[in-house]
Amino acid sequence: MLEGPAGGNPFVEVSLSAEFRKGRRVFVPEGFYDGEGVYKVRFMPDEEGVWRYRTKSNKRELRGVTGEFLCTSARAGNHGPVSVRNRHHFGYADGQAYWPVGTTCYGWALKTAVKKRQTIASLRRSPFNKIRMIVMPFAGSRTRLFPFPGKSREDWDFSRFDPRFFHNYERCLRQLMALGIEADVIFFHPYDKGRYGFDMVPHSVNIRFLRYCIARFGAFRHVWWSIANEFDFLRTRKMSEWDSFGRAIAKHDPYGKLCSIHNGALMYNNQQPWITHASIQNGSAVADFGRARIYRDCFRKPVIYDEVCYEGNLRVRWGNLSGEEMTHRFWQGYIAGTYVGHSESWRKGLKRDSSWLGSGGKLEGKSWRRMGFLRRIMEEGPQEGIGPVDGDDMCVGGIRGRYYVVYFGWEKPGRWKVDLPRGVPDGARCRIDIIDTWDMKVKPVRGVITLKTKGRYHVVGANGEVIRLPRRPFMAIRIRILD
Amino acid sequence: MLEGPAGGNPFVEVSLSAEFRKGRRVFVPEGFYDGEGVYKVRFMPDEEGVWRYRTKSNKRELRGVTGEFLCTSARAGNHGPVSVRNRHHFGYADGQAYWPVGTTCYGWALKTAVKKRQTIASLRRSPFNKIRMIVMPFAGSRTRLFPFPGKSREDWDFSRFDPRFFHNYERCLRQLMALGIEADVIFFHPYDKGRYGFDMVPHSVNIRFLRYCIARFGAFRHVWWSIANEFDFLRTRKMSEWDSFGRAIAKHDPYGKLCSIHNGALMYNNQQPWITHASIQNGSAVADFGRARIYRDCFRKPVIYDEVCYEGNLRVRWGNLSGEEMTHRFWQGYIAGTYVGHSESWRKGLKRDSSWLGSGGKLEGKSWRRMGFLRRIMEEGPQEGIGPVDGDDMCVGGIRGRYYVVYFGWEKPGRWKVDLPRGVPDGARCRIDIIDTWDMKVKPVRGVITLKTKGRYHVVGANGEVIRLPRRPFMAIRIRILD
Repeated sequence: MLEGPAGGNPFVEVSLSAEFRKGRRVFVPEGFYDGEGVYKVRFMPDEEGVWRYRTKSNKRELRGVTGEFLCTSARAGNHGPVSVRNRHHFGYADGQAYWPVGTTCYGWALKTAVKKRQTIASLRRSPFNKIRMIVMPFAGSRTRLFPFPGKSREDWDFSRFDPRFFHNYERCLRQLMALGIEADVIFFHPYDKGRYGFDMVPHSVNIRFLRYCIARFGAFRHVWWSIANEFDFLRTRKMSEWDSFGRAIAKHDPYGKLCSIHNGALMYNNQQPWITHASIQNGSAVADFGRARIYRDCFRKPVIYDEVCYEGNLRVRWGNLSGEEMTHRFWQGYIAGTYVGHSESWRKGLKRDSSWLGSGGKLEGKSWRRMGFLRRIMEEGPQEGIGPVDGDDMCVGGIRGRYYVVYFGWEKPGRWKVDLPRGVPDGARCRIDIIDTWDMKVKPVRGVITLKTKGRYHVVGANGEVIRLPRRPFMAIRIRILD
Repeated sequence: MLEGPAGGNPFVEVSLSAEFRKGRRVFVPEGFYDGEGVYKVRFMPDEEGVWRYRTKSNKRELRGVTGEFLCTSARAGNHGPVSVRNRHHFGYADGQAYWPVGTTCYGWALKTAVKKRQTIASLRRSPFNKIRMIVMPFAGSRTRLFPFPGKSREDWDFSRFDPRFFHNYERCLRQLMALGIEADVIFFHPYDKGRYGFDMVPHSVNIRFLRYCIARFGAFRHVWWSIANEFDFLRTRKMSEWDSFGRAIAKHDPYGKLCSIHNGALMYNNQQPWITHASIQNGSAVADFGRARIYRDCFRKPVIYDEVCYEGNLRVRWGNLSGEEMTHRFWQGYIAGTYVGHSESWRKGLKRDSSWLGSGGKLEGKSWRRMGFLRRIMEEGPQEGIGPVDGDDMCVGGIRGRYYVVYFGWEKPGRWKVDLPRGVPDGARCRIDIIDTWDMKVKPVRGVITLKTKGRYHVVGANGEVIRLPRRPFMAIRIRILD
């Protein structure tokens, strides 16, 4: 925290950054003006020990301020930032695997204090470790705080920011951090609908907004960048502008945090280097077998299906999944080596502001608890993450020769003859569990089963073992190869 | 044709190109040495009228040769080269739509004269208008002609080419041209298996080979470039080399011909600018609904599933599709706005060289005739090509509001209640045909049906019309909106 000029327009007239150094490690995050003559530079060290810093600025009083601090070891529960690991998966900086089990509450940070408390309480009880949330207010957000000074679309001052808006947003971010929930912060969206005109600001203001957000939020270890929600529905922006937002983030974020862009109907080129993982809207991709893995194969990055329609009772089909279907989609994503996002949208009389998706509040669906069960299964599985094990066995995910999950979806089999794709040596032994993904139960099959190759493509039980199943949907089989 | 130096090594010592000019239009194709002191520069003009040329060379006798010729109008049946049209589809230069209905005969051009005649006779009877064929001999190709002078892997002279090899290949290309069949020429492949060592030559030789092929084949209007078959199975090459092959093609092909690279297990980044369309191996992508379109959405280019397993009776699963399944996969591709490739592989005693896939010869499967029927349906449909019309109706392709094909695959419905995705105005009238994709019959439904919107997502018959179907698999419904 530094004191500096409060006059003029510090947001555009004052440049500030600081070089943080420890041995050969150097980070140069930008600082920001926090109002009332106060300037800040935030920094997230990535190594224990003494860090030295020195500020840079075009203003004399902010320039050349030096100091040092000791970065101590992380507190319990702080695993550091999440990054991509093993091409299609994620891990914390301390080495622990991170399994994205996310939900979406676009506007929760813009709501009343009561509603925010309710949301945080819901999240605390929930299995979610990731949340998608919007920065820019949207038509239905009913907020009285705005990122720019002003009261309505007639009088915004786009040359400044309103620090009060960001103070509130950061309080919300800190609450999520305390819960161990990653914040997937969405910069732009197409939901202004003429209300505030925030989707019509000049490109240069958008870039300044991105830099200000990065300077403020970038040092929060749990923050991810989502360039936009349904980017292609924001018809005021060209594809070249989306690319330039991505490049700006890559340039100004000193940490290379996770960064994605969420599509509407048009798929972004997720091979762009500033994109760390594909954030995809496509419910049908996880509604049936063999689809989810294709995005993974095309983009060769982690895939999170951040919008697959929502559990709820709206008339629109994007908001009327049953809890069963929502849970089914999470499992489809899992066996394909991808991840799925949750939300809920409920119709309740005339009050439109009542659903978890837009506002947070209470979780009322049936699926959210089941995500916790899936998260447990993920955590019990291989720490490097699973994926498709064979091109032609669409209902099996795993790691060849080690671990398999066979998932039956809406089918109701009464039995499953032990049958895995090739890749397990003859004589290997395995333990098998029957998983009821809906009742959230794991039932071990007694004993150990020996496997043998059958023909060119199959591995079966040496004695033709058959597992009895209860003729209910949403059953899965977990096979762990021993030795 | 020019005469020039025959001594030394003309393949590396002589550079030759010619500038062809008509008004502001300029092309500068490279020439090539054809042996025995003969040099050639081939050119494919793209406009009628007088073209002037002037050669360039590092050899005095080949330099500054000028001349002109009159490009007359195209002969009947010559529609010019094919290029991408309407993002996901293809068209000839004269404006006619091109519907890829392709087959694969990797090695047919390397076979005996008898076998080649047989292949050409089969193609003449077939509906195929595209063929994938390899340039570099492969382990089982049993050829006595090689692109490099020499007899075995011990004595190839990689600094030269053997024009006789290319003369044969070009005769084959010309025969295809006469049949109106596009030649998808595959430069590299992983099937050498230590036989010739052609997969181990230095990068610079590969680049020279590409340039020589482009100089020789580039002026053939029906030639496409396929950088490799199953590129990732060729483990001697790094990804950066594949990229550099693509860049070399883009640089040396003055016409910007169609160019793709065919994958094994690893998907190439088909967003690279030198890739005009995705050439994909993935049988499961077209084995069921909702998969094929995903590649299309990711790459935003035409998608040709050039390998979806083959009709045949091999023990390996890539070679034992039934004719029904092969045909089914073509239709799955079609309703997704993509295209599928055919081939056949039959086991016949010990003679390994007998299958259409590797050698050509006779078509013996059941599916190839059905591709002709599908091609007729394509040709009767909208000339700009069709695609998925709605995110959630995976069995329907078409153009919203104009044309729909509902395909039932392996299902055996006894009836179909008229039901289309939203996007047809109330009161629109349509004609409906019942298509039996296996029996190759179109049966019009009598009369005209009026449509009306039902709810948010459906358009149905105004009187709840129901179409009776014969409870057989592979049925489709074609709906053409009138007015």
